[in-house]
Amino acid sequence: MNLSTVLNEIYQEVNPLLGQGKVAKYIPALAKVDPLQFGMGVTLNDGTFYGVGAYKKGFSIQSISKVFSYTLALRAYQSALYKRVWREPSGNPFNSLVQLEYEAGIPRNPFINAGAIVVCDSLVSHFKNSVKALHKVIGFIHECSADKSIIIDDEVYQSEMEHGFRNIALANLMKSFGNFDNDVNGVLQTYFKHCSMVMNVQQLSRAMLYLANDGTDPISGKQFISSTLARRINSLMLTCGHYDASGDFAFRIGLPGKSGVGGGIVAVVPGKMSIAVYSPALNEHGNSLVGTKALELFTTKTGLSIF
Amino acid sequence: MNLSTVLNEIYQEVNPLLGQGKVAKYIPALAKVDPLQFGMGVTLNDGTFYGVGAYKKGFSIQSISKVFSYTLALRAYQSALYKRVWREPSGNPFNSLVQLEYEAGIPRNPFINAGAIVVCDSLVSHFKNSVKALHKVIGFIHECSADKSIIIDDEVYQSEMEHGFRNIALANLMKSFGNFDNDVNGVLQTYFKHCSMVMNVQQLSRAMLYLANDGTDPISGKQFISSTLARRINSLMLTCGHYDASGDFAFRIGLPGKSGVGGGIVAVVPGKMSIAVYSPALNEHGNSLVGTKALELFTTKTGLSIF
Amino acid sequence: MNLSTVLNEIYQEVNPLLGQGKVAKYIPALAKVDPLQFGMGVTLNDGTFYGVGAYKKGFSIQSISKVFSYTLALRAYQSALYKRVWREPSGNPFNSLVQLEYEAGIPRNPFINAGAIVVCDSLVSHFKNSVKALHKVIGFIHECSADKSIIIDDEVYQSEMEHGFRNIALANLMKSFGNFDNDVNGVLQTYFKHCSMVMNVQQLSRAMLYLANDGTDPISGKQFISSTLARRINSLMLTCGHYDASGDFAFRIGLPGKSGVGGGIVAVVPGKMSIAVYSPALNEHGNSLVGTKALELFTTKTGLSIF
Amino acid sequence: MNLSTVLNEIYQEVNPLLGQGKVAKYIPALAKVDPLQFGMGVTLNDGTFYGVGAYKKGFSIQSISKVFSYTLALRAYQSALYKRVWREPSGNPFNSLVQLEYEAGIPRNPFINAGAIVVCDSLVSHFKNSVKALHKVIGFIHECSADKSIIIDDEVYQSEMEHGFRNIALANLMKSFGNFDNDVNGVLQTYFKHCSMVMNVQQLSRAMLYLANDGTDPISGKQFISSTLARRINSLMLTCGHYDASGDFAFRIGLPGKSGVGGGIVAVVPGKMSIAVYSPALNEHGNSLVGTKALELFTTKTGLSIF
Repeated sequence: MNLSTVLNEIYQEVNPLLGQGKVAKYIPALAKVDPLQFGMGVTLNDGTFYGVGAYKKGFSIQSISKVFSYTLALRAYQSALYKRVWREPSGNPFNSLVQLEYEAGIPRNPFINAGAIVVCDSLVSHFKNSVKALHKVIGFIHECSADKSIIIDDEVYQSEMEHGFRNIALANLMKSFGNFDNDVNGVLQTYFKHCSMVMNVQQLSRAMLYLANDGTDPISGKQFISSTLARRINSLMLTCGHYDASGDFAFRIGLPGKSGVGGGIVAVVPGKMSIAVYSPALNEHGNSLVGTKALELFTTKTGLSIF
Repeated sequence: MNLSTVLNEIYQEVNPLLGQGKVAKYIPALAKVDPLQFGMGVTLNDGTFYGVGAYKKGFSIQSISKVFSYTLALRAYQSALYKRVWREPSGNPFNSLVQLEYEAGIPRNPFINAGAIVVCDSLVSHFKNSVKALHKVIGFIHECSADKSIIIDDEVYQSEMEHGFRNIALANLMKSFGNFDNDVNGVLQTYFKHCSMVMNVQQLSRAMLYLANDGTDPISGKQFISSTLARRINSLMLTCGHYDASGDFAFRIGLPGKSGVGGGIVAVVPGKMSIAVYSPALNEHGNSLVGTKALELFTTKTGLSIF
Repeated sequence: MNLSTVLNEIYQEVNPLLGQGKVAKYIPALAKVDPLQFGMGVTLNDGTFYGVGAYKKGFSIQSISKVFSYTLALRAYQSALYKRVWREPSGNPFNSLVQLEYEAGIPRNPFINAGAIVVCDSLVSHFKNSVKALHKVIGFIHECSADKSIIIDDEVYQSEMEHGFRNIALANLMKSFGNFDNDVNGVLQTYFKHCSMVMNVQQLSRAMLYLANDGTDPISGKQFISSTLARRINSLMLTCGHYDASGDFAFRIGLPGKSGVGGGIVAVVPGKMSIAVYSPALNEHGNSLVGTKALELFTTKTGLSIF
Repeated sequence: MNLSTVLNEIYQEVNPLLGQGKVAKYIPALAKVDPLQFGMGVTLNDGTFYGVGAYKKGFSIQSISKVFSYTLALRAYQSALYKRVWREPSGNPFNSLVQLEYEAGIPRNPFINAGAIVVCDSLVSHFKNSVKALHKVIGFIHECSADKSIIIDDEVYQSEMEHGFRNIALANLMKSFGNFDNDVNGVLQTYFKHCSMVMNVQQLSRAMLYLANDGTDPISGKQFISSTLARRINSLMLTCGHYDASGDFAFRIGLPGKSGVGGGIVAVVPGKMSIAVYSPALNEHGNSLVGTKALELFTTKTGLSIF
């Protein structure tokens, strides 16, 4: 199996699909992105990188950032975090608010918005204020991607803040249940800023390597999180990483992964490698349409699967 | 790693937990089961078996049967089956009926009751009538467990039929949406009968071996289902195998598995082995309390995990 | 106020609206009805009748029948009936099953299907079997309309039975909660047969007179139900009589009423009169489009309103 | 019928019930209220007042204020208001957020919190800012009660603002759907301040007289709202005035009414009188327990009912 060949084949095969799907429209900064882009990259646990297409093109990582903030919060609180955010898939998106209400303000998992907002709230508490919490998250992204040049797209951030009414609603609903400790505005700044980080697929595949290696960055040798907790993050990505298409992603691709509405998806092959893909047009579930297809082709061609 | 030692350690460690939890009460035949039982067994892909406790004690497999019927239906219909039953976790159990209604009679996955009933309906259509469909399911269980002595517990079956009003409701609701083709009563007979099969953990761990070996029984060499589809069944067990505690099971145990309210749980280590455990007292999610703990100890002690 | 003039004006004014809306399509026997029909009738408490349009044309009374069966059940059980069926509006129709599930099998009111089915179940228990229960309901309709010629439309009844899967689902769900005592099939026969009665607006306005007169038929002087309970039925018609448009009907028309998908609506002016209207094309809430408009014109022109 | 006698009888009969139910606990200012109080008052359309018990004791009118703000908004916007807030009962309270989400941010009626908040938002738009809007509402309360001494309880208001997270959530959810035009904080100040007005039952029964007289204050002769709209407000009080016990209130009492968690209830007998009652201990639906009973006794003893 030659990964360069595999990636090039994928690049050819997905090309006719570019143009299908739609880019995220809820904020202008995302709505104007060129939908025809595609990039894919693989970083092996020994650091070797294979890339194809626009693998150097930065994009808004959006919900992929939730993996980084959850890693930090889990490291800080260990199992005490589970009381504030569960580990169950959330089912149909239309249920988002009713489930939060029915389940007394405890989000089902850290990868839905309510859960990630609680995670950010816990980081603000842990690091004392929202500015420090944000710096810690950015610092962690710099560390695991081994790249300090990664920054926030301020236009995306401003757009998110201006259209964040539903997230303000979620935060206040949790506050009404006592599951929110800090100022809503400060926490949402941290939340939206880390969602607005810009990375390319090379950086992302590099950054996720610690989850392909039981919590320890295989290149620097630094342990970011314990082996047990790293496996648990992977299990969460498998069961909850792709909104209401998580089951389908697990079914078709068979790898832990996390997508973002910016068009990025990351996936992890435990013990072997990390994969990232970018194509901004989304399918009806809010996941990159071509990115999902590319990952399906990748596991079909390589036979890599955790199952 | 000596599996005999591991199983004996687990047996010691879970012993103090026996007495916690409650056996299923919804039918008399299950309510009267002795809650203090425990048995665990592992069958390696080469056929070697390790057992501890009551590993020869038969019990009602209940929802574990859904893995067998789904395998047959997937083999018969391939991806055409996906139109009738999806692959997504179902979220909170209180949503069961509303989700079915909201999603126009298409069950979220084949491991919730509505999904398994549709699977049985598809088998009745495929094999022409409900008696033949049942014989095919029983025949498949005999084949993959390599044991033709496995039979139905008629008392459990009768009990289920007498208390099956909710399942009749589910079937009729799906019929109102056009997702049910045969006589409700006949399909429910097939459904309840295959749920009422009696197996012990040795038989169950043997029977699941094809899912630990990409769809082919590693001992007989017979292919029961394609490699691709076997992996998809495993992914479904991971995301949907344990009712509303599926995420937690994946999080803590990290293996594809399926539980039943009879107190049994099966789990699969792809490429290596299949594990079954039995202890009839259930936790608040309807999964074997001691069985879940035993599997968590197993993966902790052996380091086996797909993540 | 000359009621003949009022009815004739209404007839003129609604004429341009005929052709809007759609007849009920869920069974063939209703789907083939001519949508352009209109009839309206008023019976005063002294027996005087005013009619316009097709006031002699019989139609399927459908859910209007629920007023009659509820009257009988309330007479038989008095307040003991409230334990089995509540008196609250049911909100959005999409909630029908989830509310029934969430509220443990107790329907919100007797005018939604689940509630009317429980009412029929209670009548089957009270009158010992489903045939006698049906005869009692038919007998009551004959008595309060003073017309023994009213019969069941057997084609509609057969159609309903063949398409009644959702109602079978509701009955079985209630049975699973212990709120259903008799054979589902027998109760549904009673239910569908009384829904399939054929009446015209003259007969219907006559039959409802006891509710315009505190429970006593003002013409025969027979008391059908106590004054207190008659007022309670009226309040139920006001709050729950028109599916999810009950609030709007109360808001715009201001009279207790009950509609059916056959295109009929009845309304009551306490102390004065009873009104019935027929036009089979329905609005988006399942109520007669022209019938609703005609009643709104009637209360606007006459100033009659309970508010 | 001597109303003094009726009120005195009621006072005797409800006395043994004082001590049942619980005062609202969600804010300290309400939690400390003495639960054993009772007062009741009737104002006839000619201005005659009958009172019993603590009819001069002021209390927090809470949701009763929604009748006043809705009257102003309906007067300002007429039927254009219906696009922003419907007229349907809302069903089970657990649905509050999901219904708002499912129905795209349009509250079901102006008497649930979401609806009253939208009404306040519409008043802020109409009167240009939140301070002027509040002054108009207070001015209207002064006018229809003919009492300019009525003021806001600032402690209650502060408490509400400090615990108003769920209402902030509702406002932001509506904003995310485009059904909220002004600054959330300003609108909520108006909302909470008008909920925090202090009135006694004499003032309240006087203030509601315009709704017992087709929109025109029978004493001053001033028309506050058209006859048609006054009747529509009455119909809304009947179908939606008492949270999820609105149907039961209509069923048992048979009058349009509105309750508040401060323990007050108002009711209207069209053409005749307005009634107010106060007793702060609430039943499980959040309505005054003794107040509801007192009104039921009132309609039983007097035979007054709109049905």
